[in-house]
Amino acid sequence: MDLLRGSHIPLLKHCWYVAAWSHEVPVGKLHGLTIIGQPVVVFRKQDGTLVAMADQCCHRHAPLSRGRLEGDDLRCMYHGLKFNAEGRCIEIPGQQEVGERFCVRTYAVREADGWIWVWMDKPETADVSLIPSATGPDDPRYHMRAGHLDYQANYLLVNDNLTDFSHIAFVHENTLAGGNRDTAEVQPRVQLLERGIRVTRWNRNMASRSKDPRHPFSDNFMTYDFLVPGVLLMFSGNYPVGTAEACNMDAPGDREPISATFTSQAVTPLTADTTRYYFCWGPRIEDHRANPQLIEILWSLANRAFAEDRDMIEAQQRVINLHTGAPMHAITHDRGPTMMRKVIERLHHAEAALQQSA
Amino acid sequence: MDLLRGSHIPLLKHCWYVAAWSHEVPVGKLHGLTIIGQPVVVFRKQDGTLVAMADQCCHRHAPLSRGRLEGDDLRCMYHGLKFNAEGRCIEIPGQQEVGERFCVRTYAVREADGWIWVWMDKPETADVSLIPSATGPDDPRYHMRAGHLDYQANYLLVNDNLTDFSHIAFVHENTLAGGNRDTAEVQPRVQLLERGIRVTRWNRNMASRSKDPRHPFSDNFMTYDFLVPGVLLMFSGNYPVGTAEACNMDAPGDREPISATFTSQAVTPLTADTTRYYFCWGPRIEDHRANPQLIEILWSLANRAFAEDRDMIEAQQRVINLHTGAPMHAITHDRGPTMMRKVIERLHHAEAALQQSA
Amino acid sequence: MDLLRGSHIPLLKHCWYVAAWSHEVPVGKLHGLTIIGQPVVVFRKQDGTLVAMADQCCHRHAPLSRGRLEGDDLRCMYHGLKFNAEGRCIEIPGQQEVGERFCVRTYAVREADGWIWVWMDKPETADVSLIPSATGPDDPRYHMRAGHLDYQANYLLVNDNLTDFSHIAFVHENTLAGGNRDTAEVQPRVQLLERGIRVTRWNRNMASRSKDPRHPFSDNFMTYDFLVPGVLLMFSGNYPVGTAEACNMDAPGDREPISATFTSQAVTPLTADTTRYYFCWGPRIEDHRANPQLIEILWSLANRAFAEDRDMIEAQQRVINLHTGAPMHAITHDRGPTMMRKVIERLHHAEAALQQSA
Repeated sequence: MDLLRGSHIPLLKHCWYVAAWSHEVPVGKLHGLTIIGQPVVVFRKQDGTLVAMADQCCHRHAPLSRGRLEGDDLRCMYHGLKFNAEGRCIEIPGQQEVGERFCVRTYAVREADGWIWVWMDKPETADVSLIPSATGPDDPRYHMRAGHLDYQANYLLVNDNLTDFSHIAFVHENTLAGGNRDTAEVQPRVQLLERGIRVTRWNRNMASRSKDPRHPFSDNFMTYDFLVPGVLLMFSGNYPVGTAEACNMDAPGDREPISATFTSQAVTPLTADTTRYYFCWGPRIEDHRANPQLIEILWSLANRAFAEDRDMIEAQQRVINLHTGAPMHAITHDRGPTMMRKVIERLHHAEAALQQSA
Repeated sequence: MDLLRGSHIPLLKHCWYVAAWSHEVPVGKLHGLTIIGQPVVVFRKQDGTLVAMADQCCHRHAPLSRGRLEGDDLRCMYHGLKFNAEGRCIEIPGQQEVGERFCVRTYAVREADGWIWVWMDKPETADVSLIPSATGPDDPRYHMRAGHLDYQANYLLVNDNLTDFSHIAFVHENTLAGGNRDTAEVQPRVQLLERGIRVTRWNRNMASRSKDPRHPFSDNFMTYDFLVPGVLLMFSGNYPVGTAEACNMDAPGDREPISATFTSQAVTPLTADTTRYYFCWGPRIEDHRANPQLIEILWSLANRAFAEDRDMIEAQQRVINLHTGAPMHAITHDRGPTMMRKVIERLHHAEAALQQSA
Repeated sequence: MDLLRGSHIPLLKHCWYVAAWSHEVPVGKLHGLTIIGQPVVVFRKQDGTLVAMADQCCHRHAPLSRGRLEGDDLRCMYHGLKFNAEGRCIEIPGQQEVGERFCVRTYAVREADGWIWVWMDKPETADVSLIPSATGPDDPRYHMRAGHLDYQANYLLVNDNLTDFSHIAFVHENTLAGGNRDTAEVQPRVQLLERGIRVTRWNRNMASRSKDPRHPFSDNFMTYDFLVPGVLLMFSGNYPVGTAEACNMDAPGDREPISATFTSQAVTPLTADTTRYYFCWGPRIEDHRANPQLIEILWSLANRAFAEDRDMIEAQQRVINLHTGAPMHAITHDRGPTMMRKVIERLHHAEAALQQSA
């Protein structure tokens, strides 16, 4: 399957993908989804340990996510084959022997920072050091809400969106930007990382979202890492107006912000045409205590803004699908998206080389 | 068109397909459907005789099922071409002559046992002896109801389902099985027939569906023929507990059952991706008279159960459509499905040989 | 893209297509649609002058019709690129220079007779003399209403429908035909034009639609030009019964009709599978004044009739999509459709020759 239709950037298997929020998979629940075109079912053993395996019975390909958990085992509810947590079939109703070949593929799975991560290459190649360190909804330093939404679009279009915040001034003119055009006027700093990019910027003299009478305006500093396949980890702090200039547009260091938020987001390609987008967002715990309404403001804002992104990106995908032959021209703000696509390309070449040497 | 996408088993043309229940085609009605990718319209002449022809005007391919019956003739309601029951165009508005080439393909059609059967190969090759002898809703020995439902799935997945009842224990755990797992635990007897298979089995000590206080439990004997392309004809009788053992698990012969039902079902491939499933079911007339509520219980059960099948099979089809490359492994219960696919394959080879020699 | 799937008749680029009714594009509105598979956005400058350009930003292919008009310029609301009415990018937020290559394709666009016409070949090749002279809803001689509807069908099937009115007797038996079968029984006169065909006919002794007690029946004369790509311009006049014969079935010349209507219609291929159909219809202004209810009768009739066409043509397209291999046979009434397809073919060859010599 060509997950990158209309693009020349390849797809990573040797990579951790977010399959769910931790709270979406309580003990007893079967969570089925498709990741890079592969059906995956995620569940917990009774001790809470996670299991991820092919959501596809090795008998007739019925989805195991329509099955039933029996202790730590998963029974396919089409013909009753029962699999243990290692993907090994341990019971076939009506027959004594269960051949060795009766097994479904398992995936390495980890839980970290409120997310469930699945390694889409062979489990023995899984490298836990490659799981990005996120700040999730259970982090005591923040008061967050979490959600997700699905796109009818290729994931790279979502990645492009998240690696270039200049769109905030336009797509989110009346929501996130509040009329301020700094994200578009001023180039952010974009640095190359081993598995992604780091984007930092000051947006000066922004109107306060919390309507804080003591700080109606502030200088906003945001810094985020965007890591393969599409994980965004962003700190955003508001400082007294003038701080940006005082810092010479550099990072504020250990200056105390007036208020701050954190958002973690993850882009998971389901198929070539569909993408799931996970996001959490919220204020520091002290800001939340000072203003318990703030989380409502932020969450409502996030949901409106992310719907704006989706509308635009799905419309963009429909135009791309017409294959008119018109070229795409890069602008200065594409440094982020371009760098990110190159990172994915480089990692893909490394992955292919690894495959060959194996 | 590849009606067997994802499968290597070929499609039969030299075969009778169920196109409708008899009562679905009263005199005066045009019944259009697609069978193995061919548009077909079925209707009755005024004397009740059936006609089946291509649902595709030979002029501009408008569907004749949107036309109008005029006596025994069928007028296309796009440009008014009129066809007689032999598919010969007998009137073209605005012109005097009607060329010989103006005709639509007709199909051999027969009515038997409550069903309308269409032979999808050339009419002159139709062999009425190949119509299975069913027990339909008009059979005086039973009190039946009839219906149909459509699948977003290839018909072979429905055939597989009907040739292996081990799924009853799981898919229908809370409906048909009532918690009993005998259909899965015990292998049925499966015999090869000329154009299908015969499946027989005892399910012992089943709870009575009719809540008959005199027979709260019984041994259930079911026997069905499953014939090409997908016709299921099943007798199911309840006998006093112990009968199965007394019969040495063989057929009960002429022992009188406490109660019995019959069901006839037919699987018709519409296109490669869609299938129509016809079914009737009901108790013996004497059982119905003794308990007029029974038909309600059975019919409600059938509709819940067949919806369970459809949910599972459509989900299975969606997984298959991902083309993950994972193999399918056969289990002992696959004897029925495997035998049946081989019957279809054998008949297809015979059909191809016939075509070549012609 | 094959816009003529299942057909051998080619598609014209060197041609004016109706993109909208004039009133559908007020100053300040962005009107986006797809014409022959190309995304196009149409809007007005502040002085009312029309602009048509690719509905596809040259940066990331976001649709400009989701953008914002700023004076006479159009800003893409994804990343803020601003284009002038010549399609030249004049601002890229966050960068000083705007390279020459930053432009979107523009199209020649003209407004005439209530319609907005777009030339789908290079603007410098646009020939305004090829815009048919229509009678639109703003024509003072008629009192008209205008609308459009979209088809899930290839545009040639709609063209076929409009170049052969014999279908009126059948598709519109209970609406436009009112039971009269003349359109089917009697061949119209069909003449070849440079870029289309002219169809004329008398339908004698038709019941009055306006229930005019003085003229309960009349002879109806209709004449229309059908021009590439699919523009229908029709005058329909009612004359005293006997006029047709008195004229020897020729045109009524300057005889005064009892009443008359005009309809202009246009067929625009959006994609290979979808088509937009524009239509206006109404009585002469003097007939409207004499009977203000007439427009309601006609408009209700038109909407019911055009829905009948759509139902039939979409059903026809679904049968064609089955690719059964059955042939299509032409009838005498196909002179119009056949001539029209040949005109399109001839113009396409001329267009291809032009392309080669360029």
